[in-house]
Amino acid sequence: MPAASTRVPQQERSRATQARLLEATVECLVERGWSGTTTTVVAQRAGVSRGAQLHHYPTKAALVTAAVGHLTERRAAELRVEAEALPEGPSRLDGVVDLLAAAFTGPLFVAALELWVAARTDAELRAALLPLEARVGREMYRLTIDLLGVDERRPGVREAVQATLDLLRGLGVANLLSDDSARRTALLHAWKHQLATLLTPVAGPPGSDRH
Amino acid sequence: MPAASTRVPQQERSRATQARLLEATVECLVERGWSGTTTTVVAQRAGVSRGAQLHHYPTKAALVTAAVGHLTERRAAELRVEAEALPEGPSRLDGVVDLLAAAFTGPLFVAALELWVAARTDAELRAALLPLEARVGREMYRLTIDLLGVDERRPGVREAVQATLDLLRGLGVANLLSDDSARRTALLHAWKHQLATLLTPVAGPPGSDRH
Repeated sequence: MPAASTRVPQQERSRATQARLLEATVECLVERGWSGTTTTVVAQRAGVSRGAQLHHYPTKAALVTAAVGHLTERRAAELRVEAEALPEGPSRLDGVVDLLAAAFTGPLFVAALELWVAARTDAELRAALLPLEARVGREMYRLTIDLLGVDERRPGVREAVQATLDLLRGLGVANLLSDDSARRTALLHAWKHQLATLLTPVAGPPGSDRH
Repeated sequence: MPAASTRVPQQERSRATQARLLEATVECLVERGWSGTTTTVVAQRAGVSRGAQLHHYPTKAALVTAAVGHLTERRAAELRVEAEALPEGPSRLDGVVDLLAAAFTGPLFVAALELWVAARTDAELRAALLPLEARVGREMYRLTIDLLGVDERRPGVREAVQATLDLLRGLGVANLLSDDSARRTALLHAWKHQLATLLTPVAGPPGSDRH
């Protein structure tokens, strides 16, 4: 159907162009870092005209912020689907921690870290990232609560889930320059036991807690 | 004593020049980030001639690696001194975690993170940083074991101490763009309890453990 593209609605074509630009942005951040990423290089890589790129994302800050925001949402949705394949029962927690650890050592984490560090000394990028930081923080917390299937109103659950995410962020940084997977696996093995204990309701009087 | 400087031995003057260069480097990394840090700017800031700077640290990679390595050692020594003022007993652990948390949210952490992220896409810097990364990792682990006064041969101690350092690294990153201290304080409050439990020897038969 050679003429198909002309029948694709404008809105759908825009969305496809945006998706290509955002994916090319994250790839570029991973390969070249913040300073090696330019809007021109991204447009070339995405096969999108400079005009179209400027139309959708007029500045580098707008482009990179949209890219990390969009791909974080997509990755979170993928994690929910992957988590559906995990078994119920005690080993589910292990699987959830492994899925999250993979996310925190993957390309999207690396791209996000490039932005976070650059934003420290770049006022325009910082202003664009602050709302994204708050949103991503909330989403990762919600995702983890949901995947673990725990009740955040129980004492200690919120802190244990947050500590897990902060620990994984630290492990992501430790993996930047060299393969830290052996140490990480051993450390997370111990952490999973600990987290299971923290998330297990303390036995109260009979009937007071049905979990 | 206007002529004093001519009587200072050459070696001592060299050491003072180096110290000024290394401190100026970390200040520059904190203020301007990796891309805004140049050897010229550092030499100016330190009040050291370009020739002297090139003599001591011929490349930017050599300069920044020496700076973070040197100041990490000095900070570790300071932490040992500060920890001497902490009380013995159960509250000592809280104080040690607070000292470490301050280090992981201070300027030296920020400067190091600039290097770690830049090194991901800069082969020369990466080659210079890898040995430093291994050394700093070992030193921070050793420092924490010593400050806590725990026996790393006991099961679980190594993992608990490593997890503490990885958690603090994650909290350091969470503090880059905005003041995360309220969340961090609440999270570390819970973590201190947990760590105390992990580091407390499980009661064995009477006389088997004197702690």
